[in-house]
Amino acid sequence: MTLLLSDRDVARTINMPAIVDLIEQGIREEKNGRVDMPPRMNLDTEGNGFFRVMPAVMNGSKLMGLKFFFRSTDQSAVRYLIAIIDMEKNDLVALMDGHYLTAVRTGATTGVATRYLARKDAKTIGLIGSGLEGRTNLEAVCAVRNIEYAKVYSPNAERREFFAWEMSEKLGIRIEAVDSPEKAVEGVDIINVATNTSTRNNMIAFYGKWMREGVHVNAIGSTTPSLREIDADSFRNADLIVVDTMYLEEESGDVMDALAQGKYDRSKVRELKDIVSGPFERDDRQITLFKSVGTAIQDIMGGYSVYKEANALDIGIDIRGFLESKIFKK
Amino acid sequence: MTLLLSDRDVARTINMPAIVDLIEQGIREEKNGRVDMPPRMNLDTEGNGFFRVMPAVMNGSKLMGLKFFFRSTDQSAVRYLIAIIDMEKNDLVALMDGHYLTAVRTGATTGVATRYLARKDAKTIGLIGSGLEGRTNLEAVCAVRNIEYAKVYSPNAERREFFAWEMSEKLGIRIEAVDSPEKAVEGVDIINVATNTSTRNNMIAFYGKWMREGVHVNAIGSTTPSLREIDADSFRNADLIVVDTMYLEEESGDVMDALAQGKYDRSKVRELKDIVSGPFERDDRQITLFKSVGTAIQDIMGGYSVYKEANALDIGIDIRGFLESKIFKK
Repeated sequence: MTLLLSDRDVARTINMPAIVDLIEQGIREEKNGRVDMPPRMNLDTEGNGFFRVMPAVMNGSKLMGLKFFFRSTDQSAVRYLIAIIDMEKNDLVALMDGHYLTAVRTGATTGVATRYLARKDAKTIGLIGSGLEGRTNLEAVCAVRNIEYAKVYSPNAERREFFAWEMSEKLGIRIEAVDSPEKAVEGVDIINVATNTSTRNNMIAFYGKWMREGVHVNAIGSTTPSLREIDADSFRNADLIVVDTMYLEEESGDVMDALAQGKYDRSKVRELKDIVSGPFERDDRQITLFKSVGTAIQDIMGGYSVYKEANALDIGIDIRGFLESKIFKK
Repeated sequence: MTLLLSDRDVARTINMPAIVDLIEQGIREEKNGRVDMPPRMNLDTEGNGFFRVMPAVMNGSKLMGLKFFFRSTDQSAVRYLIAIIDMEKNDLVALMDGHYLTAVRTGATTGVATRYLARKDAKTIGLIGSGLEGRTNLEAVCAVRNIEYAKVYSPNAERREFFAWEMSEKLGIRIEAVDSPEKAVEGVDIINVATNTSTRNNMIAFYGKWMREGVHVNAIGSTTPSLREIDADSFRNADLIVVDTMYLEEESGDVMDALAQGKYDRSKVRELKDIVSGPFERDDRQITLFKSVGTAIQDIMGGYSVYKEANALDIGIDIRGFLESKIFKK
């Protein structure tokens, strides 16, 4: 069978703690060398659009798959498709919209990083950005730490107030909207930077000078060379930088700028797969920074969770026998 | 809208002359530099399976898309999916099974090559191989030359006899099954080699010593390093070798063997995009060889033809609004 899932179908299946655990499992598999995952393919269009393709083979989880996403011009919207192949069945088992799931799996990966990098007793979080990624990244942090209180800043007062109300209802924690980024990050244990600041005059939403002893920062917005979010000092001031893939040196504008300024000290950088495979113990006085750009492992494990939940909940359309098979004689 | 098309749906839409013309248009666009097409991604599984991904952006035709195909182990069947994106609509307009279409577009590309490389007065063809690719490649040659008579050889007498009967009915030409490859290729104007000989002791189905003055040979079966079909002398004896992509030096076992034996003289090799963009005139005494491994352009143009025909014929399932769009504020 092949399950066809719309964005709304996907949203109904999301089980954030399960996705955090599955992505952690996938990242551990990456460390064990049982994953074949080349750098993502970045194709360009003449009108400043793009077509990106991210495949992986995960031998331990018995899954293959890919995400592609595209826009025709720089004025167009982005669309995402995720395909999941079950290697035991040798079949395409799901085709799903990857729009909402991309935000979910980015959040879930932040959850994995936060599980290892934030202080065990972390109770407060400061949020910069009140969009979809702001929501999923907060939800994931709440899945791995006992968060009691959050502050949120974004430039639009109505949006940050709505975010505070909505997410407080959803997560059962106190959330306050504040009118400056400094107020949002002051005195908190964890900071999530999840913005889309590329069209503002000052694209920097978070400054390294705001980092205090013991804080853990997650930054997920700068995923292409032209997207910016955190300044180079954020990388300089961090005692430990953890990344989801080393390829982000060619993908993230934030990292590229820090490199150019000589503020990205590779001796402080470790991959998330090394952290989750341990042994790793955080020094509670350290400043830690998790920077991600996304990998196919995250998409495939997120998509696999959606597929399993959708089957259990009888969600989606089963396009049985969708792909014919070509038998090779042996 | 997004049209979902099964293999049977695809088969009902096939218009071979239209696909030959569309692929020729796509290859001309490749020459004009309006195509972004990286080398295909070849991922491997632990069980000798594979996952291959072939994307392209075609700015002139306003199409993007990809094909992926996979098998989990070397014992598994292969499945294919093709996705077509209309750049003017900025939307995924079709998802289709790529099994039959892969054979069709391979044939159609042979058709493009034969249009330029075979003698204008070619009337006879010899076929080695009586499988699906044997059918589509013959059909495509008949779309570009007035073929009156064909001979077909494959090791299984029943299969070649059935092929002769079936394709004679379909194409309205005389086809004779013969009991040796030499008989099939003797005295003909065009030769199609379209086999799957990888599991035989002698994997070579065609020898260069069989090439006579003025013949044009199409060979499409050796598309991975382990697949073989024509011997190294076929490349040595050809006066002109035309390829669908220069990457085939790393993809085709036939080409790799000819290279290793010093029988692949690159000064005789031209890309199909250069031939169709002319000026090019065949010398009727020359021996010409077209060797293809397949490109994403062929899949996308083939898929686009299927999509247009399916719309006109009201075939397939319209999964309207399948992919949500993520709007970026400007």
